[in-house]
Amino acid sequence: MNTALQIELPEFLVRANARTLVLAQGEARMRFVLDLARENMAAGGGPFAAAVFEHASGRLLAAGANRVVSSGYSCAHAEMLALTLAQRRIGHYDLGVASLPPCELVSSAEPCLMCLGAVLWSGVRFLSVGARGEDVTAQGFDEGPKPADWAGELRRRGIEVRQDVLRDEAREILRAYQAAGGPIYNARSAS
Amino acid sequence: MNTALQIELPEFLVRANARTLVLAQGEARMRFVLDLARENMAAGGGPFAAAVFEHASGRLLAAGANRVVSSGYSCAHAEMLALTLAQRRIGHYDLGVASLPPCELVSSAEPCLMCLGAVLWSGVRFLSVGARGEDVTAQGFDEGPKPADWAGELRRRGIEVRQDVLRDEAREILRAYQAAGGPIYNARSAS
Repeated sequence: MNTALQIELPEFLVRANARTLVLAQGEARMRFVLDLARENMAAGGGPFAAAVFEHASGRLLAAGANRVVSSGYSCAHAEMLALTLAQRRIGHYDLGVASLPPCELVSSAEPCLMCLGAVLWSGVRFLSVGARGEDVTAQGFDEGPKPADWAGELRRRGIEVRQDVLRDEAREILRAYQAAGGPIYNARSAS
Repeated sequence: MNTALQIELPEFLVRANARTLVLAQGEARMRFVLDLARENMAAGGGPFAAAVFEHASGRLLAAGANRVVSSGYSCAHAEMLALTLAQRRIGHYDLGVASLPPCELVSSAEPCLMCLGAVLWSGVRFLSVGARGEDVTAQGFDEGPKPADWAGELRRRGIEVRQDVLRDEAREILRAYQAAGGPIYNARSAS
C-alpha cells in the first residue's frame, strides 16, 4: 500500500532547491526563474518555472517547474511545486506566518486559475510575473475562468503584484516550447 | 537532498485508497465521502473529503481529505489529493483520456478557487458537491474570488455539475468542526 503521495523532482530542481542563493529584487530573481524554465524544457518538462524568495533579503527558499507530463499529475504546475517546497522548508502551511520574513513568489508566467487560488492560500505577500496570461493562451495553453482583475483581487487580499518582469524573454520561452512541438495539455475548451 | 515532494496519507486514507468498492450514483457516493470527512476530523484533519469514481460503473479510483494543517502544505485540499491519487492510479495526468471511462469527482463541499482550477485541469467529466460555498464561508473558510457562475464555467467546458447532494448532512460536518474549535486557516481577507 502506498502511504504517501509523491512527486519526483528532476535533478536540476533538486540541485536548485539545495542552493544557497541570495538575489536582488526584480530582474535578477526573474532571470533565475527563466533559466529554470529553460532547464525544465531541456529535462522534458513544460515551459514554466517559479521560485519563492524571502522578499527583503532575497534568500531563495524553493524552486519549482511544471512537471505535469513527467509526473502524471495535472496539478504539478510550477507555482504549486515552488510554494509547496517553500512550505516544506519552513515547516508550515502559511508562508505569511508572523514569525518569518514576508515571502515573494516569482513566476515565469501569470498564474492560471488553480495557481491563483494556490497563491492566495500560500501566505506569500508578493507576486512577480514574467509573461502575461495572453502570452500563455497565445501558445494554446488554457488559463481558466480567472477574474478579469485577478491582480486587483490579490492586492485587495494584501498581496503586492508586479507584472511584465522580463516579459519579452519570458514570452520567448513559451514560443520556443511551441516551436519545438512540446505537448499542450488543456481542459476542454469553453464553447 | 530531497529528491521528491511527498504528502503522507493518514492510515484511514491509505485504507480507503486500497479498497475495492463500487457505489451507485448520487447519495451513496456522497455518503462515503462524508464518512471520510468525519474520519479526517477524527484524525486531526479539516472537515473536507473527496473521492474519484468511474462515473458509469461506480468503481472507486481514489479518496482524499483535507490535510493542510497536518501536512504543512496549503495546497493539500481534499479535491487535490483525490484527483492526484486518481491520476497516480491510472498513470496519466488526464482523467478524461479517451482510453478510460469518464470520471466523477465527488466532494463534500463546493470547490474553492484553487480546486475549481484543479477540477478543470484534471480531466474529470462529472462533479458532485455536498455543501454550498455559502455553507463553507459561513464557518469562516475562504473560497476565493470564484466566478459568480462557477458551475456554468465548468459546464461550458464539458463538466456536468450536480449540487446539493446530501447538503444538510455535509453542512452539519462543517458546523461540527467549527463547534469543536478546529483551526480555520485563510488568506488575508478582502478589504
